[in-house]
Amino acid sequence: MTVDPAQKSRFSRRSVLVTPAAVAGGALLTGAALAPDSNAGSAAAVRQITLYAESLPGGLFGYGLAPGAATIPGPLLEIYEGETLEVELVNNTDQRLSIHPHGVDYDVNSDGSPLNASFNAPGETRTYVWRTRKQVDAGGGRFMPGSAGYWHYHDHALGNDHGTVGIQKGLYGGLIVRRRGDLIPDRQFTVVFSGMLINNKKAPDTPMFEARQGERVEFVCIGHGDLPHTFHLHAHRWADTRTGMLTGANDPSPVIDNKNLDPGSSFGFQVLAGEGVGPGAWMYHCHVQMHADQGMVGLFLVRNPDGSMPPGAQAAIDRFQHHHVAGPQADHSNHHG
Amino acid sequence: MTVDPAQKSRFSRRSVLVTPAAVAGGALLTGAALAPDSNAGSAAAVRQITLYAESLPGGLFGYGLAPGAATIPGPLLEIYEGETLEVELVNNTDQRLSIHPHGVDYDVNSDGSPLNASFNAPGETRTYVWRTRKQVDAGGGRFMPGSAGYWHYHDHALGNDHGTVGIQKGLYGGLIVRRRGDLIPDRQFTVVFSGMLINNKKAPDTPMFEARQGERVEFVCIGHGDLPHTFHLHAHRWADTRTGMLTGANDPSPVIDNKNLDPGSSFGFQVLAGEGVGPGAWMYHCHVQMHADQGMVGLFLVRNPDGSMPPGAQAAIDRFQHHHVAGPQADHSNHHG
Amino acid sequence: MTVDPAQKSRFSRRSVLVTPAAVAGGALLTGAALAPDSNAGSAAAVRQITLYAESLPGGLFGYGLAPGAATIPGPLLEIYEGETLEVELVNNTDQRLSIHPHGVDYDVNSDGSPLNASFNAPGETRTYVWRTRKQVDAGGGRFMPGSAGYWHYHDHALGNDHGTVGIQKGLYGGLIVRRRGDLIPDRQFTVVFSGMLINNKKAPDTPMFEARQGERVEFVCIGHGDLPHTFHLHAHRWADTRTGMLTGANDPSPVIDNKNLDPGSSFGFQVLAGEGVGPGAWMYHCHVQMHADQGMVGLFLVRNPDGSMPPGAQAAIDRFQHHHVAGPQADHSNHHG
Repeated sequence: MTVDPAQKSRFSRRSVLVTPAAVAGGALLTGAALAPDSNAGSAAAVRQITLYAESLPGGLFGYGLAPGAATIPGPLLEIYEGETLEVELVNNTDQRLSIHPHGVDYDVNSDGSPLNASFNAPGETRTYVWRTRKQVDAGGGRFMPGSAGYWHYHDHALGNDHGTVGIQKGLYGGLIVRRRGDLIPDRQFTVVFSGMLINNKKAPDTPMFEARQGERVEFVCIGHGDLPHTFHLHAHRWADTRTGMLTGANDPSPVIDNKNLDPGSSFGFQVLAGEGVGPGAWMYHCHVQMHADQGMVGLFLVRNPDGSMPPGAQAAIDRFQHHHVAGPQADHSNHHG
Repeated sequence: MTVDPAQKSRFSRRSVLVTPAAVAGGALLTGAALAPDSNAGSAAAVRQITLYAESLPGGLFGYGLAPGAATIPGPLLEIYEGETLEVELVNNTDQRLSIHPHGVDYDVNSDGSPLNASFNAPGETRTYVWRTRKQVDAGGGRFMPGSAGYWHYHDHALGNDHGTVGIQKGLYGGLIVRRRGDLIPDRQFTVVFSGMLINNKKAPDTPMFEARQGERVEFVCIGHGDLPHTFHLHAHRWADTRTGMLTGANDPSPVIDNKNLDPGSSFGFQVLAGEGVGPGAWMYHCHVQMHADQGMVGLFLVRNPDGSMPPGAQAAIDRFQHHHVAGPQADHSNHHG
Repeated sequence: MTVDPAQKSRFSRRSVLVTPAAVAGGALLTGAALAPDSNAGSAAAVRQITLYAESLPGGLFGYGLAPGAATIPGPLLEIYEGETLEVELVNNTDQRLSIHPHGVDYDVNSDGSPLNASFNAPGETRTYVWRTRKQVDAGGGRFMPGSAGYWHYHDHALGNDHGTVGIQKGLYGGLIVRRRGDLIPDRQFTVVFSGMLINNKKAPDTPMFEARQGERVEFVCIGHGDLPHTFHLHAHRWADTRTGMLTGANDPSPVIDNKNLDPGSSFGFQVLAGEGVGPGAWMYHCHVQMHADQGMVGLFLVRNPDGSMPPGAQAAIDRFQHHHVAGPQADHSNHHG
């Protein structure tokens, strides 16, 4: 299975949001006409999108940017700190559902919770308003945090009042609130650990993320479901900060390559693909051994700078395909004694 | 169920500690005569309190500031970095028990562990001494950490040598070591995730925390028991720092609204109630779906600035009461495949 | 059981790495001839070691610095940021196995994963190359993280493609990438939480770490297996930073004494033994109550400055030995309701 990275960018586009070059693990929301800093200073910009919640084969559900275009995870949404996003959600299913964001500001009508009667009845269209804010100097060397961060959104109403079934069946996606001046990546990948699945798939069907050696790639990692997880990426590391980078030579933040990704949590980071390690097929996986063994594993394929396959990468991909169909299972029964 | 926030402050008071205006989710320990910075410079201040460990109905136990006043969680204790707190613990039960603090300094006699023969026999009174320290400049741009933080205390002797039964039955509480200059909140809430309970309660009996729009409220979050949890608060966020605030425009700390709250861990933060989102009934809950579904959910009621109920809030409270008695349960049996 | 701390340093030595005085919980890798900053400026230093993977009694496996010297955990490896470590791994077992590091740079041939055909067949010797890098100023107040950190290494091939059996049976160890100028501790302890074991042992057989009052000791904590854990150390605390220390009076990093230690994660910190609390037998343990109750507990023995035993310490050690053989068990069956 070789994949042309160019294929990854064949998604609908809308001129509403920040423009990365390519997104995998979810649809792309871009603003081709919007340079990253084009509206610096217009803090009150209001952006509008329409999302369609739809049924998918196998009893699954997804959010999409057009009818028939729902994906799991849903589109990666991205705005700048200070902006407002109006999300018109069209419910094309026969279920009660909603959209609940993390990190941003919303009043009770946009909470996305049945508690606040904030949901879409079957067939209903409803608009949810998400505002963001810049940090505020509270005096005395203290700042109240702004909205910038790697956040996410998910259903909070399908199946029960906490959206447990909606989340289980695929109604989730990433949400980035960028700060002016933040680096814009070349490629973006959304990774959702939910149950024992990645983006509702098991290996070998988990997403293979692709980039060329040296490209700036951004991972947006989201946890859901009932189980604790840890996200590990081979051969790359990041700082445990808002951006994954450090702010100075003496920044005390830990540098890590493995991080808890437990239900409701999210984080993100940028790395230069293959920097210092070269191209190849690198694993990303849950480091809970039983979860990895049962399929919470995927590949981050770093191609040569010209886009060609590096030596050994196709063999690794073939091995990955074979292993997770026919590979041996470890005995977890006596792990704990 | 409407609650007058004024009711929340009807707890015994002792002039030993920092003075917040009101505390929920535990008794209040205040120093009405003590302005926050009144003893700046007297680093060696020694404060004394008496705590009573007592049996409660249903086989539970609690710590309280007076006989018959035990609560779950126990009183929220608060001192300034540099101070010493002498805790005289009166054991009014027929069980061996103790008090073990996190974050502060104690010698082996105040460890609270049977390992060090540091516990109260049934009926016994024993004094535990907790000291705190300021950070120390270790040279070369390095500081050894001081004691300031959002900590907690718990039994370490009831039922077995790790206090497993004492913790299970309610012997825990919050402990704040404040640094001079830290902001003092208007209201404080202690949230303990233990087992699948919040402050040993299930929804709809979990605490409803209340504040008025714009008040500075402080959450002290503590994890206990056997299970991993994540704490999520709707419509508010905080920095993952010592105080929940940032220290500058370029502070790299992550901003979050969902954080692991696993056994033995604690954290705290301050938010302005309803800031940017308005008043209303906001959920706080464990984001592990199965835990939320089974009742690890409570309400943070943000009232109007004048203390009146905002539109829709009473309906949300009624819904909450009803849902958690009669609400549907999601099927968790096939979550993981 | 009294232990002479001098016994702890009877391990083979090789002049390849940084020189701490003594290491427990694993073999020692030191460079007696290498002052900590002796090769500052020679960023491209290449160090070489040979590790022997061997079978141990009870179906276990370990890494060691010489034939017959395998330990669980394996030797604590330590290099400076900017250096390269060439690890010649001799597989003296009849199993396929490998070594996979966290935090450092390696190409696909040194990945240690069967995915990349990077492993030792039974009896095979193979060299793995681990490079490190200094942080890079990316402009605009952003630095791409360097390699400095408390990392670890483990098998990734024994039993299955994720090394689940190798890890279960003891093939893991600590890896420190030190930054020039970092403080060098007097003693180092490696603590691995894997399954419900510490360094593959249950109390009372878990390691007793020893230091003298005031010595600078370094804990390297590593999580493995299938279960979530939290590491707690009595009477000591650290900052949640790269080094466990703060970088200034207003460093916003949380100060903690309990931290998630979930599979694949690692962290480290330095404390002054018994600082502000005095000598004695201090517990370290998993704070998941059920795990502590079932033996995830050990002792950190802080001796008097002259090396003698402090009052009460031997009694505590005796109690520890007895308790974990014959102590009562709490009922965990109804923890969660």
